[in-house]
Amino acid sequence: MLIKFCNQCGHEVKYQVPHGDDKPRAICQRCFHIQYENPKIVNACIVEHGGKILLGKRTIEPRKGFWNVPAGFMENGEATRSGAVREVKEEVLAELKNVTLFGVYNIIQRNQVHVYFRGELAHDEYGAGAETSDARLFAPEDIPWDRLAFPVGITALKRYIKEMPTGDFTIKEEDIIIDYDLLKQFDPQPSND
Amino acid sequence: MLIKFCNQCGHEVKYQVPHGDDKPRAICQRCFHIQYENPKIVNACIVEHGGKILLGKRTIEPRKGFWNVPAGFMENGEATRSGAVREVKEEVLAELKNVTLFGVYNIIQRNQVHVYFRGELAHDEYGAGAETSDARLFAPEDIPWDRLAFPVGITALKRYIKEMPTGDFTIKEEDIIIDYDLLKQFDPQPSND
Repeated sequence: MLIKFCNQCGHEVKYQVPHGDDKPRAICQRCFHIQYENPKIVNACIVEHGGKILLGKRTIEPRKGFWNVPAGFMENGEATRSGAVREVKEEVLAELKNVTLFGVYNIIQRNQVHVYFRGELAHDEYGAGAETSDARLFAPEDIPWDRLAFPVGITALKRYIKEMPTGDFTIKEEDIIIDYDLLKQFDPQPSND
Repeated sequence: MLIKFCNQCGHEVKYQVPHGDDKPRAICQRCFHIQYENPKIVNACIVEHGGKILLGKRTIEPRKGFWNVPAGFMENGEATRSGAVREVKEEVLAELKNVTLFGVYNIIQRNQVHVYFRGELAHDEYGAGAETSDARLFAPEDIPWDRLAFPVGITALKRYIKEMPTGDFTIKEEDIIIDYDLLKQFDPQPSND
């Protein structure tokens, strides 16, 4: 979303390249405050319990009605790990143990970086929390791949499940490319179950 | 920096907790646009060449005159890795090969996440670039620890150097705690050499 006004003095901004910079920024034409726009971080956690994966069903757009790895935008005042733990607590009402880094996924088309962790349920307790209508444990062979919400979750889950049998988990940094044409063509409707 | 005005319509904002949220956000009192504030990403790369580490000397505040691992704020439209590669090119005029993830460092006090890579010089070429007065290769035993700019760089470099002899590099996610009292007490002045 293009910036139109200064958030410090309320005057109009123009996109101009500041001295010593090489990119246009939203510069206030009165107080010269610069509003920088930077990528946002999403923290997520793949949660395992007894060889199954915990997913939540989304009640909000985008991708309402689709299943997802618990995830959400990082807040000021938290760490990537504590952000992921918070999202799991909020969305699928679960406490975690053994939380460790799993991947860094760049989504350039969305100006997002998703930091994925993996962890285990601390207790056998979970449920549908905020923005979630259902929470379920899926055996690897039962994961509803065509009803998963986002390419980044699919990419991370596929690697997790591949590495599960040996427990020899890697940590990867990868780019996620969103194919908008494919999404339009094949996007299934969410089920009502 | 507190947000005072709407960057979409220029009207005053108030910090209020939106419906369904649990944190105060800057909400426009006319058009109800919400300006979210989130942590920023810094990408960095530890660059090795012939068993030595490439550092740049900062010409800008904060920590002007101190040595640093090439690093900078991530831009929209790039990936963490390409951001790190760009910073190395800009600051120490070097091309890289074998760039791979090294660490994710949370700096909660700064609302920053630093994504560290490691890589090697593609050619034996480097020099002082943007915001940099000097670029040098340091043998591990010659690294000027008390003249390094930031705790995050020190933490990452220490682990890198510890892991160098075997080449068995790990990837870690860690919190960096800035001790402001210690900084005030012991902060050395930058040298002029």
